[in-house]
Amino acid sequence: MPGKSFERDGDGSRVGNETELIQTYLAPLAEGMAGAFGLADDAAVLRPASGCDLVFSSDPIIAGVHFFADDRPADIAWKALACNASDMAAKGAVPLAYLLTLALPEAPERAWIAAFADGLRAAQSAFGCKLIGGDTDLTPGPLSIGITIIGSVPAGKFIPRHGAKAGDHVFVSGTIGDAALGLALRREPSLFSELTIADHAFLLDRYLRPRPRLALADAVRRHTRAALDISDGLMKDLSRLAGSSLGIALKFDAIPLSSPVRAALAADPKVRDSILSGGDDYELLVAVPPEAAEQFLASAGKLGIDVHDIGVLNANVPTVALDSSGEPITLRRPGYDHFSR
Amino acid sequence: MPGKSFERDGDGSRVGNETELIQTYLAPLAEGMAGAFGLADDAAVLRPASGCDLVFSSDPIIAGVHFFADDRPADIAWKALACNASDMAAKGAVPLAYLLTLALPEAPERAWIAAFADGLRAAQSAFGCKLIGGDTDLTPGPLSIGITIIGSVPAGKFIPRHGAKAGDHVFVSGTIGDAALGLALRREPSLFSELTIADHAFLLDRYLRPRPRLALADAVRRHTRAALDISDGLMKDLSRLAGSSLGIALKFDAIPLSSPVRAALAADPKVRDSILSGGDDYELLVAVPPEAAEQFLASAGKLGIDVHDIGVLNANVPTVALDSSGEPITLRRPGYDHFSR
Repeated sequence: MPGKSFERDGDGSRVGNETELIQTYLAPLAEGMAGAFGLADDAAVLRPASGCDLVFSSDPIIAGVHFFADDRPADIAWKALACNASDMAAKGAVPLAYLLTLALPEAPERAWIAAFADGLRAAQSAFGCKLIGGDTDLTPGPLSIGITIIGSVPAGKFIPRHGAKAGDHVFVSGTIGDAALGLALRREPSLFSELTIADHAFLLDRYLRPRPRLALADAVRRHTRAALDISDGLMKDLSRLAGSSLGIALKFDAIPLSSPVRAALAADPKVRDSILSGGDDYELLVAVPPEAAEQFLASAGKLGIDVHDIGVLNANVPTVALDSSGEPITLRRPGYDHFSR
Repeated sequence: MPGKSFERDGDGSRVGNETELIQTYLAPLAEGMAGAFGLADDAAVLRPASGCDLVFSSDPIIAGVHFFADDRPADIAWKALACNASDMAAKGAVPLAYLLTLALPEAPERAWIAAFADGLRAAQSAFGCKLIGGDTDLTPGPLSIGITIIGSVPAGKFIPRHGAKAGDHVFVSGTIGDAALGLALRREPSLFSELTIADHAFLLDRYLRPRPRLALADAVRRHTRAALDISDGLMKDLSRLAGSSLGIALKFDAIPLSSPVRAALAADPKVRDSILSGGDDYELLVAVPPEAAEQFLASAGKLGIDVHDIGVLNANVPTVALDSSGEPITLRRPGYDHFSR
């Protein structure tokens, strides 16, 4: 399956053994990290900067679950690292390094693994981290890419998911729903035919190449009380931010939308559901104390990143989306859960 | 597949959603780790002890590759953590914490996941670390358990795989070949019928419940120049320890063997190959400078752990096993490689 439908520039030859796979394609991604030992050790070592805490996140992506087996290998690699880097941004942390475990259904074509490594190189260079270790296996299952990312925050400054207080303003970065429509288009390219080619490309790119909001990490750390990234759907992640004791009445009209999503919504009202419950946007959702709201806005503004105030958290109210007439919106599926039936 | 053939003590009911899976079965494994946030955050945080480096290793295990899908869930869990803890022992490090990514082919039976969590609890308590984060997914593939372990060594004291010098003595801990025969028995219980029931149980246990040599970590750090654990076969891992410029002529008769392996070898000379190239023993293979050999032996002796001097590394010689008449032994398969054909 690696190499099935991306454009081939190789001769179709496959990697001959584990040493070639690791040393030729992956070890260059560890260059400059002394503690990676050129990926020739069973373990890696890092010296933490004094005054810093280390932050860890581990999100694997699996073909057929989180991506399509015939996605371009560079996109798959980018996405694998981006999902994890996004968690760092939401915690106010700076990525340092990552471990990669590759489970491959067969020895990969050299062109495939070279393109995959290129995608990782682009991602690690964009996110400021390097490969330090991991493992490669053959699997009877689908291609799976496991990444554990290691980041750094000043000691005690980790921003948790829980901890918002009544009265905190909820801000969201960027626009919401793009990736959900991108995923729909990846499944069925004939959808949203009223949109332009450029709109389609934008939505697909938002799904295939999520950009973790690492530039916001510093503002998150300075001005927010609680934060997470939107990976399982806006309403589900809003409920998580609110926790069990708070809630927010979210006006649908307050949600920032890109112009392609606006156009799709105008053509098909069912798009509203995708905006509220679709995942994969990897935008940030943060709770900001009222006295810090101006500063948070200003910090994001300086970086040229749009952030929108989408409402206030209150005690003892449910988290619900309201339509333009103030009626609660009932979702068919509130958000992604692998195990619920 | 989870729950297929282990003895059931449950009612066959399955976990209802991701929150139940994580909060009921996994979160208790994170108790006492403040930076795990009860597994209710997307990331975890650790404050490194000053004067310490952090050590990382990430080895997943996959059903049908590294274990059998119908192994007892507690054994699968133990093995998943043990493989990774073994890397810490070989680097002279002390395990602190780990992240767990579980890819499950279906919502697991409650009895299965409870037994799996029990196995993890036993392992983390034996190895001195706790769960701090991770992820759970449904997969169209086989059960896969990804663990990234985080350990600690005094700054600058990480023991690398490479770095042995000519004249260094090679020591191996414990006995070799047990797990390879245990694996053979797990596949085909009618093998080695000349052995006792207790011998069979010993070999199977060595395969199913590897005991990482964490008690030796301190001696490894104090007295060795290079080290790794034996996971891919004695000869292959010896070649790795020797690196490209050194080699060792290993007398087969110098390899420490358990009495069940001796008995199996006496009955079937082909067992010799399994001893030299079988993996999964998770014993340590270390290079000790000649002047430190006595101390290393004494340190291990105080701990009641057998270590054996199996020869000396020399420059410009190949790594080869010799039979009792001094003839080189040719192996059918020198060691485990996922991708070579």
